[in-house]
Amino acid sequence: MRILLDVMSGDRPPHELIQGGVNAAKRQRVDILFAGDPDVVAHALAHEKEKLGSQFAILPCSQIIEMADSPVKAVREKTDSSMVRGLQALRDREVDAFVSPGNTGAIVAGAIFTLGRVSGIPRPGLMVSLPTLCGPDILVIDVGANSDCQPDHLLHFALMGATYARDVMRIAQPQVALLNIGGEQNKGNRLATEAYNLLRGAELPFAGNVEAHHLITDRPVDVVVCDGFVGNIFLKATEGGVTAVTGILRHSIHRFLLAKLGALLLCRTFGTIRKTLSYQRRGGAPLLGVNGPVVIAHGRSDAVAIESAIDVARREAEAGLVERFARGLAGWSRDGG
Amino acid sequence: MRILLDVMSGDRPPHELIQGGVNAAKRQRVDILFAGDPDVVAHALAHEKEKLGSQFAILPCSQIIEMADSPVKAVREKTDSSMVRGLQALRDREVDAFVSPGNTGAIVAGAIFTLGRVSGIPRPGLMVSLPTLCGPDILVIDVGANSDCQPDHLLHFALMGATYARDVMRIAQPQVALLNIGGEQNKGNRLATEAYNLLRGAELPFAGNVEAHHLITDRPVDVVVCDGFVGNIFLKATEGGVTAVTGILRHSIHRFLLAKLGALLLCRTFGTIRKTLSYQRRGGAPLLGVNGPVVIAHGRSDAVAIESAIDVARREAEAGLVERFARGLAGWSRDGG
Repeated sequence: MRILLDVMSGDRPPHELIQGGVNAAKRQRVDILFAGDPDVVAHALAHEKEKLGSQFAILPCSQIIEMADSPVKAVREKTDSSMVRGLQALRDREVDAFVSPGNTGAIVAGAIFTLGRVSGIPRPGLMVSLPTLCGPDILVIDVGANSDCQPDHLLHFALMGATYARDVMRIAQPQVALLNIGGEQNKGNRLATEAYNLLRGAELPFAGNVEAHHLITDRPVDVVVCDGFVGNIFLKATEGGVTAVTGILRHSIHRFLLAKLGALLLCRTFGTIRKTLSYQRRGGAPLLGVNGPVVIAHGRSDAVAIESAIDVARREAEAGLVERFARGLAGWSRDGG
Repeated sequence: MRILLDVMSGDRPPHELIQGGVNAAKRQRVDILFAGDPDVVAHALAHEKEKLGSQFAILPCSQIIEMADSPVKAVREKTDSSMVRGLQALRDREVDAFVSPGNTGAIVAGAIFTLGRVSGIPRPGLMVSLPTLCGPDILVIDVGANSDCQPDHLLHFALMGATYARDVMRIAQPQVALLNIGGEQNKGNRLATEAYNLLRGAELPFAGNVEAHHLITDRPVDVVVCDGFVGNIFLKATEGGVTAVTGILRHSIHRFLLAKLGALLLCRTFGTIRKTLSYQRRGGAPLLGVNGPVVIAHGRSDAVAIESAIDVARREAEAGLVERFARGLAGWSRDGG
């Protein structure tokens, strides 16, 4: 298994991302092809025992797609960027999966342009795996690949999400729900009501509507679908709520001596909070529906987050998800079997 | 100042809501007209010193609009409900403001039907006032009155929100922003990009796009506008993030003795978290743009929340916001003056 890691497009310096790749290579038994400035990569790898050759190789690139770049323009014009060259390496089967912490819009545009969509899937969907307080992660798709969606797109997100839950997460009978502003059938905007009817009529394990306030605490279903604008707002608002509470805690702990002592006694709890809810340090988001495993890591990803994103990419590639999507998304029944 | 309190439509028993009205009457120098079952109200008031007559009166009603009722149907058919009779009392100027913890959709439909929209305002907007970690509350409008919006609706939400910030919250030069999935001008779905252009071109203190993850921690602006579907998802996802962290804390504190001791030392901090971020116990959401001050309290409102919602209604009525809206929403400049 060989993973392409784009080390130039994130917010953090390349050597931190390279470290994530090195750690993944050691612990996950994968080979890494680093796309980026060859001098920077060679320098960062100088102290590694394996060095170049066996587990590590360099795909030299001279350009960087920046976070502020206009996605389509950047992908068209920066043809020697780590992102575009990396996607081409995946297309040409030089690697089995692609990981980048870069500009989400550019990765989506580049992946559609370079790899193409899986036949029969109208729009790829970006999926995140959110930790919950009561069981495995909950999957949310789409969280930002498509700002304007049609009901049919949500149906395909549901089918891809359910397949991912079954084949990658090994959940036997995954349940899918629609993110909405109320539980009843007629709730929501036009897209939500039309998507509800489409999902209810499809051969699919559909559990109806879910609301945003209890997904993490109660994990009512395995997969939640929504349009990319709403999914992105959901994700960032959740992060905002978590940050607000932890911000108050941190402030008090610095300010009051007794609180400092209390925090010491609660350090195991704080560790759990950090481990469970620090979304920016966790995993990566698979872009499902393009011809190749593409994982978008958070822009602020450090070595730990990159290692986790490589794990997500490896597991998707091992499960053969793209090939499964290409054979068609039918074959579900309403009880998830 | 006389406030109508609908005591039948919430999730909690009427006597708890009546207690909130009684407390408000004592502390805010308002008179309360309780809409509901006269026996229930009279019984709950039996121990009050002032009793009926001076500060308290009953508007007897025989029906209740339930949370699960279909909004338009319920408002049309349950003409002797506390909600409909209460809105009629506001229309007929028997009271100065209306407060209900009932079915949001039914209150919106009932208010439009009974009171009518303020001339020139295409859609009323439901606004919440969210506590922040660094200053006054931040206002978010719309959080659920309109699931499908046009750019023009968002412009009016912005103008109403800015006027509320200036005239009720006494913020001298309120800044307004658009809730979006990125900071740049061309980000977001079709509604967001069109609304951005409309807001930028309007005579309005518009500060551009804001993202959902830092509204509570950084309070980048005074007023945030969005469509009601997105606003409702934002609100509930924020609540979900807060609940997740406090849930982990609560769980640990019950489980580990050391954590229990730590929590005791942090009790002042936990009090701050509860006070700052327990949205369901706070205030009420004004429905701006209908002909009369209408405040929708959270369905789970207890006496404290009802008292707070009455405070919101009183302040809106005192500021004469409806009259100001009726005189037109122009008169803003781009720097908020």
